[in-house]
Order: sequence, then C-alpha cells, then structure tokens
Amino acid sequence: MEKNKIWKGRINKKSDILADKFTASIDIDKNLYMQDITGSAAYAVGLNNIGIISDSEIKGILSGLKEIKDKISSGKIDFEDYEDIHSLVEIELSKIAGESAGKIHTGRSRNDQIVLDEILFIKEVIIKTSENISDLQKILLEKSEAYIDTVFPAYTHMQKAQPVLVPHYLLSYFEKFQRCIKKLFENFESCDFLPLGAAACAGSGYAINSKLLKDILKFKKIGSNSMDITGSRDFIIDYIYSLSMIMLNLSRFCEDLIIYNSQEFSYVDIDESFCTGSSIMPQKKNPDILELIKGKSAVVTGNLVQILTLMKGLSSTYNRDMQEDKKILFSAHKETNDSLEIFTKVIKSTTFDRSAIKKSMESGFLEATDAADYLVRKGENFRSAHNIVGKIIKYCLENSLKLKDLPLEKLKNYSDYFGSDFYSSIYLKSCINSKVTECGTSTNQVKIKIKEAKININKIEKDLIILSKRIPKFEEIISNKD
Amino acid sequence: MEKNKIWKGRINKKSDILADKFTASIDIDKNLYMQDITGSAAYAVGLNNIGIISDSEIKGILSGLKEIKDKISSGKIDFEDYEDIHSLVEIELSKIAGESAGKIHTGRSRNDQIVLDEILFIKEVIIKTSENISDLQKILLEKSEAYIDTVFPAYTHMQKAQPVLVPHYLLSYFEKFQRCIKKLFENFESCDFLPLGAAACAGSGYAINSKLLKDILKFKKIGSNSMDITGSRDFIIDYIYSLSMIMLNLSRFCEDLIIYNSQEFSYVDIDESFCTGSSIMPQKKNPDILELIKGKSAVVTGNLVQILTLMKGLSSTYNRDMQEDKKILFSAHKETNDSLEIFTKVIKSTTFDRSAIKKSMESGFLEATDAADYLVRKGENFRSAHNIVGKIIKYCLENSLKLKDLPLEKLKNYSDYFGSDFYSSIYLKSCINSKVTECGTSTNQVKIKIKEAKININKIEKDLIILSKRIPKFEEIISNKD
Amino acid sequence: MEKNKIWKGRINKKSDILADKFTASIDIDKNLYMQDITGSAAYAVGLNNIGIISDSEIKGILSGLKEIKDKISSGKIDFEDYEDIHSLVEIELSKIAGESAGKIHTGRSRNDQIVLDEILFIKEVIIKTSENISDLQKILLEKSEAYIDTVFPAYTHMQKAQPVLVPHYLLSYFEKFQRCIKKLFENFESCDFLPLGAAACAGSGYAINSKLLKDILKFKKIGSNSMDITGSRDFIIDYIYSLSMIMLNLSRFCEDLIIYNSQEFSYVDIDESFCTGSSIMPQKKNPDILELIKGKSAVVTGNLVQILTLMKGLSSTYNRDMQEDKKILFSAHKETNDSLEIFTKVIKSTTFDRSAIKKSMESGFLEATDAADYLVRKGENFRSAHNIVGKIIKYCLENSLKLKDLPLEKLKNYSDYFGSDFYSSIYLKSCINSKVTECGTSTNQVKIKIKEAKININKIEKDLIILSKRIPKFEEIISNKD
Amino acid sequence: MEKNKIWKGRINKKSDILADKFTASIDIDKNLYMQDITGSAAYAVGLNNIGIISDSEIKGILSGLKEIKDKISSGKIDFEDYEDIHSLVEIELSKIAGESAGKIHTGRSRNDQIVLDEILFIKEVIIKTSENISDLQKILLEKSEAYIDTVFPAYTHMQKAQPVLVPHYLLSYFEKFQRCIKKLFENFESCDFLPLGAAACAGSGYAINSKLLKDILKFKKIGSNSMDITGSRDFIIDYIYSLSMIMLNLSRFCEDLIIYNSQEFSYVDIDESFCTGSSIMPQKKNPDILELIKGKSAVVTGNLVQILTLMKGLSSTYNRDMQEDKKILFSAHKETNDSLEIFTKVIKSTTFDRSAIKKSMESGFLEATDAADYLVRKGENFRSAHNIVGKIIKYCLENSLKLKDLPLEKLKNYSDYFGSDFYSSIYLKSCINSKVTECGTSTNQVKIKIKEAKININKIEKDLIILSKRIPKFEEIISNKD
Repeated sequence: MEKNKIWKGRINKKSDILADKFTASIDIDKNLYMQDITGSAAYAVGLNNIGIISDSEIKGILSGLKEIKDKISSGKIDFEDYEDIHSLVEIELSKIAGESAGKIHTGRSRNDQIVLDEILFIKEVIIKTSENISDLQKILLEKSEAYIDTVFPAYTHMQKAQPVLVPHYLLSYFEKFQRCIKKLFENFESCDFLPLGAAACAGSGYAINSKLLKDILKFKKIGSNSMDITGSRDFIIDYIYSLSMIMLNLSRFCEDLIIYNSQEFSYVDIDESFCTGSSIMPQKKNPDILELIKGKSAVVTGNLVQILTLMKGLSSTYNRDMQEDKKILFSAHKETNDSLEIFTKVIKSTTFDRSAIKKSMESGFLEATDAADYLVRKGENFRSAHNIVGKIIKYCLENSLKLKDLPLEKLKNYSDYFGSDFYSSIYLKSCINSKVTECGTSTNQVKIKIKEAKININKIEKDLIILSKRIPKFEEIISNKD
Repeated sequence: MEKNKIWKGRINKKSDILADKFTASIDIDKNLYMQDITGSAAYAVGLNNIGIISDSEIKGILSGLKEIKDKISSGKIDFEDYEDIHSLVEIELSKIAGESAGKIHTGRSRNDQIVLDEILFIKEVIIKTSENISDLQKILLEKSEAYIDTVFPAYTHMQKAQPVLVPHYLLSYFEKFQRCIKKLFENFESCDFLPLGAAACAGSGYAINSKLLKDILKFKKIGSNSMDITGSRDFIIDYIYSLSMIMLNLSRFCEDLIIYNSQEFSYVDIDESFCTGSSIMPQKKNPDILELIKGKSAVVTGNLVQILTLMKGLSSTYNRDMQEDKKILFSAHKETNDSLEIFTKVIKSTTFDRSAIKKSMESGFLEATDAADYLVRKGENFRSAHNIVGKIIKYCLENSLKLKDLPLEKLKNYSDYFGSDFYSSIYLKSCINSKVTECGTSTNQVKIKIKEAKININKIEKDLIILSKRIPKFEEIISNKD
Repeated sequence: MEKNKIWKGRINKKSDILADKFTASIDIDKNLYMQDITGSAAYAVGLNNIGIISDSEIKGILSGLKEIKDKISSGKIDFEDYEDIHSLVEIELSKIAGESAGKIHTGRSRNDQIVLDEILFIKEVIIKTSENISDLQKILLEKSEAYIDTVFPAYTHMQKAQPVLVPHYLLSYFEKFQRCIKKLFENFESCDFLPLGAAACAGSGYAINSKLLKDILKFKKIGSNSMDITGSRDFIIDYIYSLSMIMLNLSRFCEDLIIYNSQEFSYVDIDESFCTGSSIMPQKKNPDILELIKGKSAVVTGNLVQILTLMKGLSSTYNRDMQEDKKILFSAHKETNDSLEIFTKVIKSTTFDRSAIKKSMESGFLEATDAADYLVRKGENFRSAHNIVGKIIKYCLENSLKLKDLPLEKLKNYSDYFGSDFYSSIYLKSCINSKVTECGTSTNQVKIKIKEAKININKIEKDLIILSKRIPKFEEIISNKD
Repeated sequence: MEKNKIWKGRINKKSDILADKFTASIDIDKNLYMQDITGSAAYAVGLNNIGIISDSEIKGILSGLKEIKDKISSGKIDFEDYEDIHSLVEIELSKIAGESAGKIHTGRSRNDQIVLDEILFIKEVIIKTSENISDLQKILLEKSEAYIDTVFPAYTHMQKAQPVLVPHYLLSYFEKFQRCIKKLFENFESCDFLPLGAAACAGSGYAINSKLLKDILKFKKIGSNSMDITGSRDFIIDYIYSLSMIMLNLSRFCEDLIIYNSQEFSYVDIDESFCTGSSIMPQKKNPDILELIKGKSAVVTGNLVQILTLMKGLSSTYNRDMQEDKKILFSAHKETNDSLEIFTKVIKSTTFDRSAIKKSMESGFLEATDAADYLVRKGENFRSAHNIVGKIIKYCLENSLKLKDLPLEKLKNYSDYFGSDFYSSIYLKSCINSKVTECGTSTNQVKIKIKEAKININKIEKDLIILSKRIPKFEEIISNKD
C-alpha cells in the first residue's frame, strides 16, 4: 500500500513502491514519537499565541495530540502506514482535529522539526547515560572502600610494575568516567537551543514568538542561524563521540578484568550469574559479558565513523543523507547504555581474590623502584641508583632469589649506601606509602581521593536533578493551556 | 523467563536476567536459522555415517529438523525463549526426537557451527549481491546503447574538461562494478571450506568423515587449522570490504547524478516516481534516493571499521567479542543490496536531457585539448601548444568569444601552424572521435567496449549459475537419506 | 650505531639494530623538544626545592638545558643518536652538567614526562588553532558586510530552495566554527593538570612539591590518579576529535564553493592565485586548494579512527602502543592548521558574482514557500496552501512560466485568497524580509547577528590572550631561579 | 621562491606562495621518481614509435632521463624547486634535452601518469610485502618443527580450553598469512593494466601504440575506460585493505605473545635484544616491539578509513582530493613492512618455555572435553556426557582435586560408563592425538600440515619470481633502444 504523504502537490506520479519503502524512516524515527508530539504541542501553543491557531482550535489540537500519544503507547497505530513520524502525527491529527491539523506545519518544516525531536531525545538520554555512569562510579567507590587495604600489582607493558592499592586502580577508572560525564554535560549545553523558526532553511515566514517557544520547551537559547540549524548535526556527532569515549574506557576495563579473571592471574572472581559456559568444554566459566562489551565498543567507534563520514563534504543545508543519522545515534546510544548497565552489575558482583593477589606479588620485583629510591635517599643519583638495582635484579633472576633474600654484605658489593633499614623500605606497604604525591597510591592519598570522589558524585546527582528540570514534559505543556 | 541453555553443567547459579538478555544473540542470529538447520542435517548425516547416530535415529532427526524449519518459517516458534539459534535447534529437536537430539552436538561446538552458518549465509548472499550488480550493469548497457550518439562533458575538478560520449561515462561505472563482482567471486572462493571438525578450537575428538561432509555441504576444501577456523572472521571482513567498495562506487555515481539533476546542470531527469517533495517548499523535486544511498555508503564504511576494530588485537582463538560480527554483517549486506536494487530502478527511469546537455557544451572550451593536439599534429611540441592555446582561451574569456569565433588571421598571431582545417578539428564530434586509444571515448572504441561488456555480462550470468550449484540445499540433504 | 639509552641496567644483550630503529621515536618526538626542556627545567626547580638537587647544581642544570635548547634550535644536535627526546635531553645534559644530570629523572618516569610534553604542546596549539579559526571568522564577517544586500539561493537536496542573504549563508559557517572554538576551549581545560608526580604509574616516591610545580608550569589543577595519568590519552583524543570537526565543517564549505565555482553555477570567483591549471587542458582553472582540504578532512577523520582504535581494549596503564599517538596527533594538527590558514586566504580572495547569482535566481521558484505563506496569511491553512502552490508550480513548469507571470484571474482559479498584493509579496526582497524569526534571513536579523558575531570575536580574542598566559615559558622558569 | 610549473598558459596571476606550498606534492611523490622516470622512458619510446618523437630526439631523451635518475639517486636535485615529480622530470629534462622534452607530455596528462606511477609502485611493493610474509611463514615452520612435541593450552575467552601442539598454534597464523598473500596476489592482477592512453579523462588524441606500451611496461592488459582509469583508486584501496588485514593478524599474534610473555603466563621468552627497559623501574623487560606493532595496526586501519572516506561521494573523474592518496598509501605500506620485518626477527628469537607450559597445563581441566568424549565413545549421548563432566569438575574445584585424582568408584557415582581405561584417555598426549579431524591438532595431522605448508612456501617463492619478471626495469627499456 502506498504510504500517506504530506508533500504531494508538485509531484505528478505515484511513488514507486520500492522507493517508498527505501525512503521511509518510520521504522527508525518512531522512537521519537514522544519528542515529536511534545514539540508539536509546544509549536501549536506558539501558533495559538500569534493567532494562527484560534483558541477554539488549540484545545482540539492538544487533546488530539494526547490521543495520538496514548494510541501509540498502547500499540494502536500501525506505523507502517506512514512515511515518517512527522507525517504520522499530522495525518492522525487531521483525523481527530480535522482541518485545523493542517495548521500545525505553518512556518515549520520537517527540516527544523526533526532537529527539535533529536535535541529533545538527546537531552533526555544524556541524563540517562550520566545516571548510568554515576551508578557505576558509586559501585567503584563501594569496592574501593571494601578493598582499602588490598595491595595489587600495577602493570605497564602487561608486566608487573609497582604495587598499588586496589582502590587506586579502581579510582583510575572513576577518573575516566568522570571525564565522560563532563563531556556529556557539555553536550547537553551544546544542544540546548530552540531550532524552531528555522523552517526549511531560510527562517520562518511567520512572526512566531521564539521567546515563548524557548520557554515552553525549556531551552536556554534561541538558535542563531536557520541554515546552520537545519544543515548541521554537530550536536549528534558530539554525543556519539562521548559515547564512543565511554565505550573506549569500558573496553579497557573489560580487557583488564578478562585478563585478571584468567586462571593464570586469578586476581578477580566474576560471579557465576554473569558468566556463561561452553557447549562443548564443561570446565569453562567464560567472562562473556566483558568480551561482548569490548565488541560493542568497536560497534560504537564504527558508529562515530558512520556519522563523520556521512556529514563529510555534504553541501549546505539539509540533504537526505542526514536521515541515516538516527539509525547511527540509536545504535550508539543503546549499545553504550546496555553496556553500562550490565557492566555495573558485573563489577558489583566481582570480588578480588586477596590471597591469589598476595601470592602473585611475591615475585616480579615490584619493589625495584623503591629499592632505587632508597639509594637516592641515601645520596646516590637516580640514574646510577637505577643501574645498580638493575644489576642486582639480574643477579637475583640468575640465582632465583628475591631482593629481600640478599644479605647486606652482598648488597654492599653493589653500593655502599645499602644499610639494614633497606629491608623494611621494600615491604609492599612501605612501597605503597612512599608514593606520597597527590596522585600517588599511598593509603593516605587514596583515602583523600575517595572522599573527594564522594563529593563529586553528590554534585553530579544534584546537577542531574537540575538538568532533568530542563526537559519539557508533554503533560505540562498541555495542562498549561487548560 | 530464563532462557533455555545447553551449557549448564559447571555453572552453579542461575544467570542474571539482564545478563541473559545482554548475551543472547537470538535477535540477530535467527536470520541464520535455515543455515543452522541445513548444517545440522548435514552433520547428523555425517554422524550417522560413522555410527554415532544410528540408522533409526537419523530419520527422526532429519524429519525433526524439517519440522523445526517449517515451524520457524510459519512463525510458530518464539525466538525469545532461546539464547541463540544453535540452542533453539537443539532444544526444539529434543522435543521432537528425544534423546537422540543430544547427539547432534557430538564433536561439534558452537564455535565451528557458527562459522558454518556464516559461510553458508555469505556464499548465498554473494550470489544475490552479484545478481543485483549484474542487473545494474545491464541497465547501464541499455542506456549506453540508447545514448550512443549523445555527447556529454566530462568533468575534472568539477570543471568541464573534455567531451565524451554518454555511454563512455556510463561504462566508467560498468568497469567499477565489474571489479566489485570480481571481488565477490574471490570472496566466494575464500569462504569455500568445511569448518566442521574444528569443534571448540583443537579439532574434533571423533573421526568424522570430513570428505563426506564436504561433499554434502558442497565445499571445495576442508578447513586447514581448527584454531584458525574458530578464531578468525577474515572471510566476513573480506565480504564487508567488498560491500563497502560497492557502496563507495555507488556513492560516487549518486553524487554525479545529484549534481547533474540540479537545475543549474539539468543534464538528467530522474523520474518523479523516484523523487520526493518538501513539506514546506512546494516547488521541490528532490533526489532523495540518491542522497540516502550516499548516506548508506557511510553506514557501510562504518560497518567495515566496526569489524576491523572488533578483531584487532583479539587473542587466539574464539572470544565472545566476535558475536557482534553478525549484526555488522547483516547491516552491511542489507544496506548494500537495498541500495543496489533501488538504484537500478532509479537509473532505469532516468533520462539524459540531450538539448540541455548540448546547450551546456557550447561554453567551457571543452575542445581546448583538441586545439592543442591540432598544433602538435602540425609540428608544434606539446608543451608549447598547450601554452599557445592557454593564451588564446584567455583572450576569448576576456572578449566573451568562443574558439570557433576567432578568425584565422587572429589565430595566426598565436601560431603559424593554424590553418583552415582547424575549425573542423574542434567540432565536438571530431574531439570525440580523435580519442582513438583503446580506453578512449571515440564512437568506435565505445561500441567495441559495449560489445565486450555484453560478453562479460553473459559470462557472469553463467558463472552465477555455476556458483548457485555450490550452495547446499536442505531438501536435497534430507532426501538423499530417504 | 647503537643509540644511547638510559634504561640498560637489567638487560644483558645489546639491542638488535633493527629493533632500535623500530622502537625509536625521536623522528617524531623531536617536535616536542621545547616542551621537554621546559618541563625538565621546571622539574629540576622542583627537585631543588625539596633538596634533591642542590643550589649549586641547579644553576648548571638550567644553563645546561638552555644550551641544549640553543643547540637544537640551531640544528647542532644529531637526533639520530638518540632513542627519544627524553633520553636526548638527559644524556646531552650529562655532557654539560655531569653527574647532576642523573638527578633530573629522580621520581620522574618517561611515562609521566611524555604526558607533560604532550599537554604543553596541546595547550599551545589549541591557542594557535583557535587563532586560525578566529582569523577565518573575521574574514567571514568582512565578506558578510560586503555582501549585506546580496540575495542568494539556499539549497536543500542540491536543489534551489529559498532566497537568503549571502551573509546569512556565511554566518551559517561562522556558527559552525564558533562551536569548534568552544570545543577547543573545553579541550584546553581538560588537559590543564599537572601530570608530574605520577612517575611510572604508582606515583612518585619523593615528596615533590606538586603545588609549586603546578604554579611554575601554570596549571590549574594537580592530576588526580597516577595510573590514569600515565595510562590515558583522552585529552589527545578530545583534541583530535575537535580537529576532525573543524575539518568536517571546512570540507562542507569547500564542497559548496567547488560547486558554486563550477561554470554551471558561477556564483563565486576564486582568485587565480589560488587556482591551478591542467597539464593537458589549457582552459582549466581548478579549485585545487578546496579539493585538497576536502581530501585532508578524510585524513583527519582517519587520524581520529587511528587513536580510537589504538586505545580500544588497551589494558591498564602505559603500553608502548601509545607511542604511536604523537604521529597521529601531529598529522591531525598540521593538516587542520595548514587547511585553516590557506582556506582563510582563499575565502578572502573570493568574490560573489552578483549578476550571475541574480540571473540564476530568476528560475527555480525560490519564492514558492512565500507564495504559500501569502495564502496562509490570507486565511488558508498551511497544508492546503502548500498543495495549491504545488499545483500552480506544476502548471508553470508545463507552460514555461514564472509565478509572477500568472495573471490574477488565473491565480484565482486555484484560490480565492489571491489578491493583487500577491505580486509584491514574492519579490525576492520580500521573501528575505519576511523571514523574521531570530534565526531567519531577514536583513534586520542578519545585521543583528553580524553585530553579535563581532562581539563574539572580541571576546574570543580576549580569552585567547588569557589562555596564552597559562602557557609556561622556558625563559621565565630559568630567569626566576637567577 | 615560486615553484616551476608546467600549466601556466591560462592563469594570469602568480600563485600565492602559501598556495604553492599547500598544493605541492613533491615531498610525498618524490618517492615515485623511479616509477615516473621509467614510465616516461617507456612513453617516449612509444611516441618515437608513432613518429612524434624522432629517432634523433629519442636518444637524447632517454639519456637525459638516465641522467636525471642518477642525479636524484645521488641527491643532486633539490626537490623543493618543483611542484610534483612529473614537473620535475619534464623540466629537468628540458634542461638536458632542450625542446624535445616538451614532447613527452604529448597525449599524456598527469592524470594518467600518476596512475601509472602508482601502479608500478604497488606492483613492486606487493612483491616485497609478499616476500616479507613468506619470510615470516618460514620462521613459523622452523619453530613448528622445533616444538613438534610441545603441548600447549589453547584458549577461548582467555580461558584455558583444550591442549594443542605448539606447531598447531603457530600454523593457525601460517594460515592467516597465507590468506594475506592470496589477497596480495589478487591485488597484483587487479592493478596490472596500462593506464596510459587515458590522458586527462577522455582518452588520448594521438594514436599511441597501446599494445607496444603494454609490452614495454610488461602489463597483461590495456586499461578499459579513460574516465574510470583517471578517476578511480580502487587498486590502491584494495592494497591498503590487504595491508590492514596483515596488520590485523599481526596485532592478534602480538597480543598473544604479550600475554604469554607476562610473568603470570611465562610461556614464551622474547630475546632481550628485542626488549626494552624502563627509565624508572629497573626490573622491567618489556615487549615494546610487539606493543608498537599493535599500535601500528591501528594506524593502518585508520589509513584504510582515510582512503575510503577520501573517495566516498567524489564526483567523476579526477579531483585533487585524490592527491592525498599517496601519503596514505606510503604510510600503510611502510608501517606494515617495517612491522613484518621486525616481527619475523622477534619470533625467530623467541623460545617457548616447555617447563613453564607443562606446569601450567596441570591445572585448568584442559582434558574435560576428552573426558566427555570418553563417555560418548562408551555410549552416553553428548549432551548428557557434557553435563556429567561439568558436575565432576564442579566437585573437583570444590575439593581442589584434578580429574585424574578421582578414584574409579567416585567416577562411577556420576556415570556407569567410566572404566579403568578412562585415566589414559585423559593424558595430554591422548587428548592431542584424539583430535583426528583434518584440521585437528593430532601429531599426525600437524605433521601433514607442516609438509603441505612447505610445499606452499615453495610455490609462493616460485610465483614471486614470476611476478618479479612482470615489473619493468628502466635499464632494460633504455637499452632496448640502443
């Protein structure tokens, strides 16, 4: 069946059926129905304000929009009859409100309407995504406190490097996600403008009250340039970029945990309810969720490439290529939030195996840097100290010894600076607590950072409440007209 | 509800519901049900051959598989109850065939099974994609013959460069798509191997008759290395790469046509049944389909990035990250084939506007190269000839003249080589027919190329019939056991 | 020759020569020599502050660093002798300052040192990039004022849509670049932290005075977590993302101008000093620079993919994969700034051809939306108005008429709302000035926007001066110690 | 200084200096000088054949080209004076051969000339790249034979899965690289056509003897369509795609080895001459080369994105955007071949630690699949066998037992099928040798595969010799004219 269309005046022929199917976006943009209806309600109120829609008409339009919303949410409208969500709303409205429905497109084009829908969507999901990150951060803090005394080997080049506290490790991800929230908040501000009034590309031919619309739709600003508004998708790319950074950092966390979960490392134990088995190897307990998240990070990176490639070299202003943006946006958004939600549950259920970690730390010369630092404190210059300790370790490796096993006289062969206080200086706890710089892993600093992180989370939660109030609600808009 | 699983022995706890949802792939891999059932039938026949499945059991299994296939194709199985398509088939089969269903996984893992499913899928769709390209090529040839005499300006740097025949232009895309078919055929060969026998990653612990399985499933080769088979997706990446090249070339064709369809160029007229209007600007007749294809080419490029990023740095052998491959594959496949199909219809309905083209060619000095070539034929060296004609054109531009408007004595001021035969040498037809090299646009050469292209298309069609015979059919496999 | 190395203690064998060459980064990171020397000077001052470097040593170290800086800037050091810039500075310093040079690595690792170098580099080039954008914006404003009265067709779908003012078009890019500057400023803040003190990954074993170092190096904050500091490159990715958005928007501007520069459009005239000719076609005047910028936007998008793919799934903390980040960063930075600088010169030299534009606007029914708006103002509902005008245009097209050619009685056949005031309502100037919304193209609004844009540019310039003061200068650091 | 140019006729003004610098490609395309000179020599011979260049002129031209080649190879030409390599050769030639140099561009454009240069370059480096892969494969075979008896745990999901032979693991990469060589050979064929005769885009206006040129330049075919030849870069994209697949597979190999080189795994020992130390942690022996290769695989993936994005939506035929292709090509080519060469040396110097591997295999229940297979052989169906063994393993884990520690009566509690022959069936050697499928890890199969691999390598070496003969040599071309 041919779809209902709103632009038929100039075109003589019926559309080709395959063409109809190919150009229809309803399968994708139906997800924006709430935004489209909310935006249309606000716009109708605006048109009423300047007299294009009469006081008697506005009531019918608003209650008609409510009816459409209820129909859609209860599955009573067949999306397939329509080309896109804008046409659906206008045509369904005309069935309810008659001729006056034809007015809601006055001075508005699908070109500015879709931007509004996308902005409203993104503002809303930025909050959701931020909440998901914040939930993950809270678990990281809980775990940090639970393992406040657990020492853990930090790796560089996938080689044991230096001892750190488990919470120091966890907080390194807290920081990464904190930056992601910051980006999301910046995204929120950068899509906080009224696009209505841009119409097709040149601006609207009606003196719509932009100030009023801005207030109803809770925007901070009125968009600046109609050609830019209708022809850009920068705010969508920005959001997808933020999502790709969330996934990038998640993928690194997953990689760590997959390795720490291997039998060879055995540092963490992922709860069985988040593992899967093998259809052929009965012994396996696979960290599939973490692997899938890593896979999904590739999907989201690709989504970013899609939208960048889509927009590259596109001539001004609106081109239909841009219709593909929603598919890309919804994919990146869903993959990221699904991943955040499940990852938070996984990490919550994961425990660190203190005894396995302790055993592992006995080897690997994690205290080597501290041994060199000992010599420096005694008067050696750093580069020489580094060389001396390097030679001692070589000797240890060749003779299967640990640093602490070497008698003082042996050590003195390498440097006269060695004294009996050397041995306590290379206890793991000493190594930890010697890292006194603000960003270091000393217990003291880590406790300070946990405290600061809690303050941060509280701040984010408050900010999120404030941001929520900057999302327009359909019910509020229509009730204000009663 | 918790999904049915086939790997529960070792895992104590119930899965987390969200984890179940997150790891399930049934939404995506249900598209492979036909391949999975076909592969399972073949494998069951193989197990029967070596006595693991008895003669009495095999009948029940095969008819059970047929029943499942029929149920699925008529929508009678609720996919949501299952984790993936492999589990669905095994568990549904156990409902029909009882205990013997438990045998079809003997010596087979989901790790080799999914590779088989994907190979069968890709072999099939390579043929479909090739047919779609071939259909497009046929239309290009039809159009080439219809416009065999139409001269057209070739552009470099989006500037008129030299006259060519419209069929010469169309054949430049024929060539591009010919290369794409070549790639697809190479893809077909590179995924033409039996993966069964690889099992989880080390090979199967049962002496399955690989030779027999290869023959039933119509493969040319038996896979070489179980770790490689279960841990690689190179054949999928190869196919997605080919798709991205198809879309890249389509995107260029679309860009050309969008520009040629602009009012300023007006070289082509896209049939109205493939255009859309504007919701606000009644005069518009927009080439949306071409724009959408251009957009979709960005999507497919991104799909390639997704699969490359997914596999980069992945440790041997199977990792669950790889589950995301199907989503990516299906996207790239669908976008490309949808685009090919609709583009073929668009191009078929599109006409070249001979009079607009003719008018446009009056300006732009398209004959400049031929003017220089004229001087060279008379004895000038090329670099000087190029300079002389450059100066003449500068003069023409400053005086709003065309080359042919200059009297001979004027020309002689620039070079003594000019003679009265100059004027006929710069007729557009002369320009065309002077391009006598094998790859040039002379009418003669173009006619030869059209003839060769037809031969090519015939060859492709025959090759495709041969390839089709290398796809195993479920009905055939089960009927052979009757 | 084997390169000089600073880490040889533990490794027995000489490095393989090819391995040396492969791992060396000096070819790339030599570009950071100024940052490395500045950072080392600041760090030495810090070590002096806590007594690790004595008052007598510090003078030798600082003057040694100055000597190295002078040697490098006058080409007197052979980079090839060294592995990386850090080793070069330390080893060269030991030649001048002797043993005390061995102290400047006390409590510092190349892992935090390289982050400092990169941060200092990025903070500096963010300012440079912003200045380049600001210069471009100024030219856009100059041009906007020069063409304040020139009407121009806006395009959607590469089809004439509605008349706009040339400055309205130019300001649509002003807006895009304004967002880019905003991103750059956010990047500046997100890399404004002291990474020193992080050392290898666990924090420094020396009580370095971070507060002092922060002040000397003019940072706002001290980095939070040593594992995050040494193991992340988010601030680099953020900057490359901003560069890719600058290039994306430039690529669109270039695409517009390439098309407008075609003979068929002829809207703009790019000065010959920015065009190139053809080696074979004497008539060509090609907009090569614009094409190259478009090409370079693909390069920068690819740079973003490189850094994202590089970091994806990388385990904590520093891994040598990350060494490739600088090559990617420098490429993206250079391509973008080269493009910005030359594009600004091109656009400055480009003129709009008023008469060609005027001629072009006679056709294309650019006033169609206004005709529909006319009917709405008279009482028609918009959807009907749209349909009516669509039918009239169809009639015009079939009879080669323009809208203004239709007599009133003819118009009245379509709608009784038509009156004699219709004709003036579709003058181009009327169309322009009817677009009264804040973001619309009415002369009034455009003038307001130009005024606002000027204020914006002034603000940016002031901000940039403030930012410049947040870049540490080597001379200042060493002179403070005199 | 303004650069020398060959296209100045039509352009009045001097180029802007910055524009000159921006558009110049000599920095990049100087790498093609040998190809450009060889192609020019062949073309001159062709022009001599049709009388455009006289017999007396051809000698001067060829010896002039030889002189230029010698000058360049001995560093006597300052590239900076020129715009690109084509101009350099033509202008330098005119200094030597005078006026006749002006003829070598007769009927040739930089548009077809650059395609020839790139084809000649790629044909040559395909051979080099293939040789590098083949060298790596040979080392893999050497190592395979050296460790023919060493059992090794295969991993899925980074968890111990099943025992395999080390050579089985190594051969899994042999296979991957074998596919890469196959792709490279296909690339060779797909760029094996004569592009000359295409000229600017419409074909050459001179009856050049394509057959002769094809033979001199050793091509199999003459290019088909001048617009396609000058406007496509498909063969370059294909080659870069192959490079990205080589790097993808290398990155996976590196990831394996980095993990196997960790202290926790300790399966491999990378020779110290290929490791680097830490500037702060004296105990480190880091696998930097492997990490860098992984990083470089991200660079090459990005190169593929660059060239795909560059060409997407580019209108026919040549556009200057395409100039960026060489930078991308050279990057991908160099990174890949540098990585292949060093990786081959690294793998050659790497040993597998038999005792560490053996120790590791004692835990992890690698024999679990074989235990299930044992039950199947005794009569159990596979799904039940899988469940039974799963339960036994759970019991073992809870009681810190190994499978072989369980007494028979305990086993019989789980299944009556267990007998005393069970214990020998789960020896690692038994597990290995039970994998009898063609692609499986049984010693027998692996030995067959090694033999096949050797045959393959011999075949590749012979094929490479044949391919080498399809590269034209400059000396040969000029000596044939003596």
